[in-house]
Amino acid sequence: MVKKIGKKKTGFISELRRDIVSKDWVVIATERAKRPGAFIKKAVKQFDQPQKTCPFEKLHKEALVVHSVDGKNQGWWVQIIPNKYPTFVKGACIVSYDRGPYKWTEGVGFHEVVITKDHRRHIALMSDEEVDVLLRAYQDRYLALKDDACVKYVSIFHNHGQQAGASISHPHSQIMAIPVIPPDVYRSLKGASNYYRDNRKCVHCVVLKYELEVKDRIVYENDFFLSYVPFASKTAFELRILPKFHSSHFEKITPDETRALANVIRISLKKLYKGLRNPDYNFFLHTSPTEGIKGMENFDYYHWHFEILPKTSIWAGFEIGTGIEVSIMAPEEAAKFLRKIK
Amino acid sequence: MVKKIGKKKTGFISELRRDIVSKDWVVIATERAKRPGAFIKKAVKQFDQPQKTCPFEKLHKEALVVHSVDGKNQGWWVQIIPNKYPTFVKGACIVSYDRGPYKWTEGVGFHEVVITKDHRRHIALMSDEEVDVLLRAYQDRYLALKDDACVKYVSIFHNHGQQAGASISHPHSQIMAIPVIPPDVYRSLKGASNYYRDNRKCVHCVVLKYELEVKDRIVYENDFFLSYVPFASKTAFELRILPKFHSSHFEKITPDETRALANVIRISLKKLYKGLRNPDYNFFLHTSPTEGIKGMENFDYYHWHFEILPKTSIWAGFEIGTGIEVSIMAPEEAAKFLRKIK
Repeated sequence: MVKKIGKKKTGFISELRRDIVSKDWVVIATERAKRPGAFIKKAVKQFDQPQKTCPFEKLHKEALVVHSVDGKNQGWWVQIIPNKYPTFVKGACIVSYDRGPYKWTEGVGFHEVVITKDHRRHIALMSDEEVDVLLRAYQDRYLALKDDACVKYVSIFHNHGQQAGASISHPHSQIMAIPVIPPDVYRSLKGASNYYRDNRKCVHCVVLKYELEVKDRIVYENDFFLSYVPFASKTAFELRILPKFHSSHFEKITPDETRALANVIRISLKKLYKGLRNPDYNFFLHTSPTEGIKGMENFDYYHWHFEILPKTSIWAGFEIGTGIEVSIMAPEEAAKFLRKIK
Repeated sequence: MVKKIGKKKTGFISELRRDIVSKDWVVIATERAKRPGAFIKKAVKQFDQPQKTCPFEKLHKEALVVHSVDGKNQGWWVQIIPNKYPTFVKGACIVSYDRGPYKWTEGVGFHEVVITKDHRRHIALMSDEEVDVLLRAYQDRYLALKDDACVKYVSIFHNHGQQAGASISHPHSQIMAIPVIPPDVYRSLKGASNYYRDNRKCVHCVVLKYELEVKDRIVYENDFFLSYVPFASKTAFELRILPKFHSSHFEKITPDETRALANVIRISLKKLYKGLRNPDYNFFLHTSPTEGIKGMENFDYYHWHFEILPKTSIWAGFEIGTGIEVSIMAPEEAAKFLRKIK
C-alpha cells in the first residue's frame, strides 16, 4: 500500500481513506507505524473492584429482565436494572425550548444497566451460550423500549475497562433510550440512504460482498455474521460485525441468528483479548431509529451492525479539530494479526 | 436549570442541548455532577522529558520560520520545522482512487511543528508578548501553505500533556496542510451556511451578541476577543475563543488583533491551569478552507475561532456510538468557576 521511501520525502507515506457511509476521512499513516505488538498493554493493570461491595452482585428486586442459562448460576445469568444514576429518565415527551438563539430539550428517556452474573468474567471469557443469553436480554429490552412514545432511538453499548469509561469493573452493558436521533446515527443513515438513492443497493451489502471476495480484512465469520476490520478504520484494530443477511432492525433477530451473533462477538473479543492482552474497548450497536425521520421514513436501505473500538490511541488536536482520525495500523495488517489468533 | 428531584425520578435530570452550528446534541447531566474541584487532577504528574536529549532544544537548520521576542532568548523564541515523522508529505496533487467500492487518495500535504524555545514553560505560563510571537508564526506558515495547489485546508492545533496525545513534553503546536476538507470543518461550514441562508446572519455573530448580553458563559474578554464556555459544550470546561469582529479567514488577522488574541488565549489557558491544576488539553483553529467547496464557494458567512478542550472526561460507548457527548458540568457553572480565577 505504501511505497518504501526510506528517509527521503518523495512518494507518499499515508493513505486518506473515505468512509463509504459517513464520508468521513481517515488517514492510514503506516510510516509512523508500530508493529501489532506495540499495541499490547505493557502491564496488565487489573481494574478490579472488591466483590464484597460490588453493587452488581445480587439479583435486584427491580430487575426488568432476568435470564438464566439453563440449570446454572442459581437462577440468573443476566439481569437488566434501571441505572441508579441515570442520564435519561422517564417523563413527559419532549418539547423543544428556546434559550436565545439556542435550542434545548429535556433528557427524557430510559437508562438501564445490563449485568452478567460473574464479577470478573467478561464477554471474551464467556461461552457462546452465555453471550447468547446476554444478546437476547438486549433484544427483550429493545422491544420493550422501542414503543415508548418519547423514544426515538435505543442505544446499546458496552464499556470494558477504565480507559474505555467503565466506572464499575463488574462486566455490564448499558441501554439508553433517548428522545432524539443521535447525530452519528443520523449520518450513518443518511450515508446509507444517499448510497441507495444513487446505486439502488444497500451500501453495507456492497461492503459485505466485497469484503468476502477480497478477504484481507476478514477476522472471523460464521454462517450468519462477518467480523472484519473496516477499510477506513477510525482506530487501530477496530472491528465491525455485520449480518450476512440484509436487515434494517436489530430487534427482528431470530434465535438462530442471535446464537451466531454471540459466537462472532465472543470470538472477536477473545482475539482482541489474546492478541492485545485484554485491551480496554467500547462496543455499540447501530440500528434503525424506532420511528421515521422526515425525508427518510423508511429504513429498508439500512443494515444494522455492531462496532468494536479498542482503546489503542488518543484522539488529539488533529482528530478532534478535523474529525479525521489518524490510524497508524493498516486495517489489513490488523486483520491479518487477529485472524491468526486461535 | 435542573429541577431538584431528590431521589425520586420525577421531572427531568438532564438537558439535551443542540449545537447551533453542527446540529449535534450534547447532554448536560448535572445530576451526575461533580463540583468543579472534582475535575482537578489528584496528583500533578509531571510529563517532563529530559532537556538534554530533547529534539526541540536547538535552533534547526531547516527551520521554515524563526521569530524572536525582541532582544531575548538569544535570537529565537519560535521556530517552525518540518515534522520528522510526517502524516502528510509534499507530492503530486491528489487523485482519488477506487478500491472495490471504496475511495482513497494519497496523504499529500505538509506537516510541521511549531516550537517555542523554553523546554518547560507552556502557553499558560508565557507572557502576552511571547504568545503573540507564536500566533504570528502560525499566521506566517498559514500564509505560505494556503497557496499550495494541493492544499485544501490548513489545520493548526496544540496538544498539551500525554492524555491529550502529546508525545514530546517540550511545548509545541502542529500545522497540517491537507488535501481534503475535514468532515468536522465541513459540518461547521455547512451549519453556518445553512444558518445564513435561513436568517441572513452569521451564526457566530448571533452567538457573540447573545453571550455578551446574558454574560453567564463568559470567561474572559478584551476589546477584540471573547472567551466563553459554549452553550452545548462537548466536554466540561470547553472554551471557545471568538473574534468580536466578523472575519471568515484567520490569516487576515492584524497585528493589533494578534496581540489581543494572544492575551485571551493566554488568560484562558492560565485559568484552566490554575483552576484545574494544569490539565491536559487540546486546542485547534477552525477557519475557512483555502479554496471553495462546490455549492459554497464563498465563506463570507463563516467566522473563524479557536476551541480549547481540556481532557476532563473519557468518551465511552454512548459518546462514540451516538456522537452525543454527556457532560456532567453545566457550562454556566464551568464559566462561573473559571471567571472567578484571577
